[in-house]
Amino acid sequence: VKEASSIEECLQLEDRENPTWVRVIGLHDVEKLSRLMDEHEIHPLIQEDVLNQRHRPKVETWEDSIVVIQKLIDPPVSKEQPFHVENITCLLMEDLLITFQETDHQIFNPVLKRLKSGKGRIRKSGCDYLLWALLDAVTDHYFLALDQLEEDVSRLDERLQADITAVNPQEIYGIKREITLLNRMLRPSREVVAKLDKSESKLMTETVTPFMRDLYDHTIHVIETTEHLRDLSSSLRDFYLSSVSNRMNEIMKVLTCFATIFLPLSFLAGVYGMNFDDMPELHWKWAYPMLWGAFLTTFLGMLWYFRRKKWI
Amino acid sequence: VKEASSIEECLQLEDRENPTWVRVIGLHDVEKLSRLMDEHEIHPLIQEDVLNQRHRPKVETWEDSIVVIQKLIDPPVSKEQPFHVENITCLLMEDLLITFQETDHQIFNPVLKRLKSGKGRIRKSGCDYLLWALLDAVTDHYFLALDQLEEDVSRLDERLQADITAVNPQEIYGIKREITLLNRMLRPSREVVAKLDKSESKLMTETVTPFMRDLYDHTIHVIETTEHLRDLSSSLRDFYLSSVSNRMNEIMKVLTCFATIFLPLSFLAGVYGMNFDDMPELHWKWAYPMLWGAFLTTFLGMLWYFRRKKWI
Amino acid sequence: VKEASSIEECLQLEDRENPTWVRVIGLHDVEKLSRLMDEHEIHPLIQEDVLNQRHRPKVETWEDSIVVIQKLIDPPVSKEQPFHVENITCLLMEDLLITFQETDHQIFNPVLKRLKSGKGRIRKSGCDYLLWALLDAVTDHYFLALDQLEEDVSRLDERLQADITAVNPQEIYGIKREITLLNRMLRPSREVVAKLDKSESKLMTETVTPFMRDLYDHTIHVIETTEHLRDLSSSLRDFYLSSVSNRMNEIMKVLTCFATIFLPLSFLAGVYGMNFDDMPELHWKWAYPMLWGAFLTTFLGMLWYFRRKKWI
Amino acid sequence: VKEASSIEECLQLEDRENPTWVRVIGLHDVEKLSRLMDEHEIHPLIQEDVLNQRHRPKVETWEDSIVVIQKLIDPPVSKEQPFHVENITCLLMEDLLITFQETDHQIFNPVLKRLKSGKGRIRKSGCDYLLWALLDAVTDHYFLALDQLEEDVSRLDERLQADITAVNPQEIYGIKREITLLNRMLRPSREVVAKLDKSESKLMTETVTPFMRDLYDHTIHVIETTEHLRDLSSSLRDFYLSSVSNRMNEIMKVLTCFATIFLPLSFLAGVYGMNFDDMPELHWKWAYPMLWGAFLTTFLGMLWYFRRKKWI
Amino acid sequence: VKEASSIEECLQLEDRENPTWVRVIGLHDVEKLSRLMDEHEIHPLIQEDVLNQRHRPKVETWEDSIVVIQKLIDPPVSKEQPFHVENITCLLMEDLLITFQETDHQIFNPVLKRLKSGKGRIRKSGCDYLLWALLDAVTDHYFLALDQLEEDVSRLDERLQADITAVNPQEIYGIKREITLLNRMLRPSREVVAKLDKSESKLMTETVTPFMRDLYDHTIHVIETTEHLRDLSSSLRDFYLSSVSNRMNEIMKVLTCFATIFLPLSFLAGVYGMNFDDMPELHWKWAYPMLWGAFLTTFLGMLWYFRRKKWI
Repeated sequence: VKEASSIEECLQLEDRENPTWVRVIGLHDVEKLSRLMDEHEIHPLIQEDVLNQRHRPKVETWEDSIVVIQKLIDPPVSKEQPFHVENITCLLMEDLLITFQETDHQIFNPVLKRLKSGKGRIRKSGCDYLLWALLDAVTDHYFLALDQLEEDVSRLDERLQADITAVNPQEIYGIKREITLLNRMLRPSREVVAKLDKSESKLMTETVTPFMRDLYDHTIHVIETTEHLRDLSSSLRDFYLSSVSNRMNEIMKVLTCFATIFLPLSFLAGVYGMNFDDMPELHWKWAYPMLWGAFLTTFLGMLWYFRRKKWI
Repeated sequence: VKEASSIEECLQLEDRENPTWVRVIGLHDVEKLSRLMDEHEIHPLIQEDVLNQRHRPKVETWEDSIVVIQKLIDPPVSKEQPFHVENITCLLMEDLLITFQETDHQIFNPVLKRLKSGKGRIRKSGCDYLLWALLDAVTDHYFLALDQLEEDVSRLDERLQADITAVNPQEIYGIKREITLLNRMLRPSREVVAKLDKSESKLMTETVTPFMRDLYDHTIHVIETTEHLRDLSSSLRDFYLSSVSNRMNEIMKVLTCFATIFLPLSFLAGVYGMNFDDMPELHWKWAYPMLWGAFLTTFLGMLWYFRRKKWI
Repeated sequence: VKEASSIEECLQLEDRENPTWVRVIGLHDVEKLSRLMDEHEIHPLIQEDVLNQRHRPKVETWEDSIVVIQKLIDPPVSKEQPFHVENITCLLMEDLLITFQETDHQIFNPVLKRLKSGKGRIRKSGCDYLLWALLDAVTDHYFLALDQLEEDVSRLDERLQADITAVNPQEIYGIKREITLLNRMLRPSREVVAKLDKSESKLMTETVTPFMRDLYDHTIHVIETTEHLRDLSSSLRDFYLSSVSNRMNEIMKVLTCFATIFLPLSFLAGVYGMNFDDMPELHWKWAYPMLWGAFLTTFLGMLWYFRRKKWI
Repeated sequence: VKEASSIEECLQLEDRENPTWVRVIGLHDVEKLSRLMDEHEIHPLIQEDVLNQRHRPKVETWEDSIVVIQKLIDPPVSKEQPFHVENITCLLMEDLLITFQETDHQIFNPVLKRLKSGKGRIRKSGCDYLLWALLDAVTDHYFLALDQLEEDVSRLDERLQADITAVNPQEIYGIKREITLLNRMLRPSREVVAKLDKSESKLMTETVTPFMRDLYDHTIHVIETTEHLRDLSSSLRDFYLSSVSNRMNEIMKVLTCFATIFLPLSFLAGVYGMNFDDMPELHWKWAYPMLWGAFLTTFLGMLWYFRRKKWI
Repeated sequence: VKEASSIEECLQLEDRENPTWVRVIGLHDVEKLSRLMDEHEIHPLIQEDVLNQRHRPKVETWEDSIVVIQKLIDPPVSKEQPFHVENITCLLMEDLLITFQETDHQIFNPVLKRLKSGKGRIRKSGCDYLLWALLDAVTDHYFLALDQLEEDVSRLDERLQADITAVNPQEIYGIKREITLLNRMLRPSREVVAKLDKSESKLMTETVTPFMRDLYDHTIHVIETTEHLRDLSSSLRDFYLSSVSNRMNEIMKVLTCFATIFLPLSFLAGVYGMNFDDMPELHWKWAYPMLWGAFLTTFLGMLWYFRRKKWI
């Protein structure tokens, strides 16, 4: 396990009989990269794909090499930011694995550590096992982002249950969009790992087969989790819409009760405020208290009616 | 049929020519388990899967063993709790079946009883038949949870039909979510049983084929039932939303009738409450009774109009 | 064509060289049935399936027998009742067809009649042709239920078009649910008939192939009809919801027109009902008629405005 | 090219060595038809299908004949009528093509004309080419109905954009239903033409292969057009619902503005219309003008507030 | 690289041993085109397809030629216009590539330039490589339209977030429809490129295989982008509808608060405006200030109540 800062140094180090892992970090120096790749006779189209950070996950089997592109997804550091997405490209050749990544991400550190310690299966096995170890690390890392999303969804759910008005629809649609995006980004991984699993290339030895099958299981689990999250977020949205509609109903009921109670009462009061010369009721002795009685009766009758209709 | 409390004891018991069923209950003692599994040369990845209680159902065929992971689902004890979900892992080898489960669940008791009684096909058949018997018990157990859900849905339906206001949308969305979760959890079982059914491993003898085919039928029935429940719960939600909207309509109609009747009447009463010096109507002899006539006519006319429009 | 009341009698009758159809009606006497089936060496799992009236449609090809389970669906007698569903299980063996059904349904009478009359293809052909004749009768019978549903849907549609308030949303959701249920129940038939069509069992002779293909066409037609009905009922529901929303709009418009016309007028009337010492307008000569003029102008202006906005 | 009014005449004409096209128009005379078909040894099930005008499109390959059933769809003559749908059944045999249709539809006239003129490829090629020519005419004829529907949809769209109230939801749902029906009717054609395209029957010569492939392209285009229309009509419905909801909002805003402005003003006017003995404000000199000032201030303040909230 | 204005000239130029690219621009002169195509023995059906600008993308493999039809999509110049869509038809034959297009589009200029410069792989490779270069240019050009749409969507999103009333639903539905149309138009490309990728025609040499595979990746990326855009636009619509509904709620709350506060107050004011002879309250000394106290108490109580209910 050595570090090389220049390409030449790296090419020299490679020149050995043991399986070698060349790890390229930082993809800005296009010239150096193409020199490295030309040295290994990598097809120009693959060279292009390595540099394209927006390329979708894929696996491509050539006669003497396998190219694997996977997405590395980091959960956002703060709540406002989106996911950090980065491509990891692995080139598996005879006794050589080259990986390309933009940043020196810490997820491969455990693998490196195991390699450096020189113990365990990883030292004894070939490059195909190392490829699996890296892809497994990438897949396990997805769960960090998924767990964060799951927590966000359940927190949003709790807030919705507690107080619907405290939640902005924007939050619900935002989280839903993020989940859809993640699902879209991860879905091609299924095919990638399935192809690796069923690959008949001589570069994939038999020992690595059960590991690839296990990786396939994990990938399916990841995709099913994103689908589960999508269901949950759709359910949240439905619940939100239904609650908003219920709230509107509640408001309408209050409005209607008040209007239906006070409009007739106001009308009656208006009638006895008229200035006609000849309004006999105005001169009755008990008219005023009787009218108050009518007011109260109407009021209580309405209340009783609304209660029976379950409006109050 | 013997019980062993330690792994050594168990390994000694196994060492016979007859088909053996080793049943491991409780997965907390990782060390002991790995000793047991190492003894049978089980791949470390499978050992990991055994311990992972959240692993999705799967079947994996190795040269000399078949691994089956299935979900065991218990209906909730009380209404507030979610389903109890637990993994059952079965390792089928030559003349040996090892099952791993977290709790000592009672669903395998009938199988044990039949084994102990020493009668019936189960004693004479091999481990593959025993595997079928266990998976069949697990699949039949799903119906307990499904029946409970079906009852919940139909009770909710009845309550919705009786009185829409007595139902909280949360209940509908809660049951819908539970059904979706169950469907998601059970869906992979289809593939699991299909793979077992079509397995060409020498561990699956011909006698067990019709039983596996029958198990496949049951599994499809389980999945179709969850889909039917999902349809039902969607239908409930649609009906709820439509009824809420209908109720809103009804409330609006009441409000509109009252407002459209009393606003003009109040206006008229207001007009004759004005203090202009010269308002000839105020001094007419029959003005006041005539106005009451106008009030009544308007009132009845409006009522008739609303009745014709089917608002009342 | 003879009738046997006991199993023994039946077994004796069977013992001939010609193709035989044994028709078992009523599945309550489990013991007798199992005796009959044991006599023909039917697998215990099939025996179980025969008795399970809720088993989904399926076809199972054994070495010397074919098992077919189909649903027999009767339209409801009265409007309140659900569909009557019953299983028909057919066991096709060498020169023998056994059918099991719960009730003595009349749909097989035409087939029986043709058999008794001893004429036509049905007498000369083997048991496989008879199986087709029975399945064809079952499939054709589906159309009775489908036609009834289609009529229900179109009647509901007409009522919706005529008067939206006369229709309860419960009716729409009820019919939708019934159609979904039927679709779910009939969907497996497609696979059943497809398997029969492509069956390579020696029990299915070449002469029956075109008939099975024809049956497949009919089954597809049945399933497509249920899907068409499902589309129709969804369309009804959408139309209903949209009309309810339109109606609400209409009500709101009436309410708004009245409120916006009479609120300002009432305000004006209220102003001139105030008792300030110094309100010069009250003493103008033409104030009162002028105010009426203002009332009318406002009223007509509002009407014109609402008409332009297409609210009235 | 000769016309025969009776079956016998027709059979005699057929008896030649050249490829022959027998065109049967009108399917009411069942007896004659069955005599014709018996003469050519057509399977009774096919005879049934020929007469069933509601049969779904299908292709059936027999050893010495191919049966093709296609739907012939005419756009409605007037706007109120539904599509005219009719089955065309083609029986392709060695040097013989028989077509059955209910009405003497004009769409085959161009083919007939080309045949009569005796020029071009159609005269020299066999019956399989003629079959293609007929199916191609049928498929091209679908575009008439599709174009009409597309025009209807775009006209409805324009009317919706111009004035939402001028459109009845019934129109939108009606056109949507018609498109769904058409899509359902045409979808099986895809499979029909695909089967013809890949047919290995000796009746389909190699020269006709590119033509069948071209027909397949056209059929896909037809089906994609119906799907595009379905998308468009769904989009129309969504836009309609959204606009209705927007309109409701607009109405609510007007109502709310008027109510919130005039309710407080009316209250104030009501207060100064009270008859308390001691209301000092009534006797202030500038009370009445000041109150008008308050009225105006409130009115304008509210207007400003609503404008800021974008309600007006 | 020479230009020919007449067909004859072109045919002469072709007559060489090197790979030739014949580029036909403008499809109006049907006669000339058919002369050119007859010269190369192109099937009349293909000739038809070349001229049909609305033909869907397809690939057709003949014994000695491959026909590829692709859509060329230009983003609209101004905002009001739809996409400009045009067909590119490529005919690949032994050492000859003919392309047909309506307009002299600039997207092939880079390819032409590389050809003229006589350097790079393009000059040395055969016509199949040239075909790839052209299809790649077409596919890369799709991103221009997609980027424009993505920008439109995100701008619409920002405007929705900023001020919901500033967005017309027509805009949202318009963009959604455009995306659906694009998705529909591009979806067949997947199959086209997949067929080319897996083509076993001798016209496609091995060197071009990795390029075709790369083209397939790009095409999938294009289609996934349109699907992502479709998701985004659906999400926008959902957010819009939900916000409109929220706004309605807000308006209803304001209306209800005002009405429920002022209706009872107005009623009280109306009561004390009545003209009964005997209303003792009117003569109490502190009645008027006490009433104002009651008004204020009610007003503030209501405000407090609404605040607690989160209506204000």
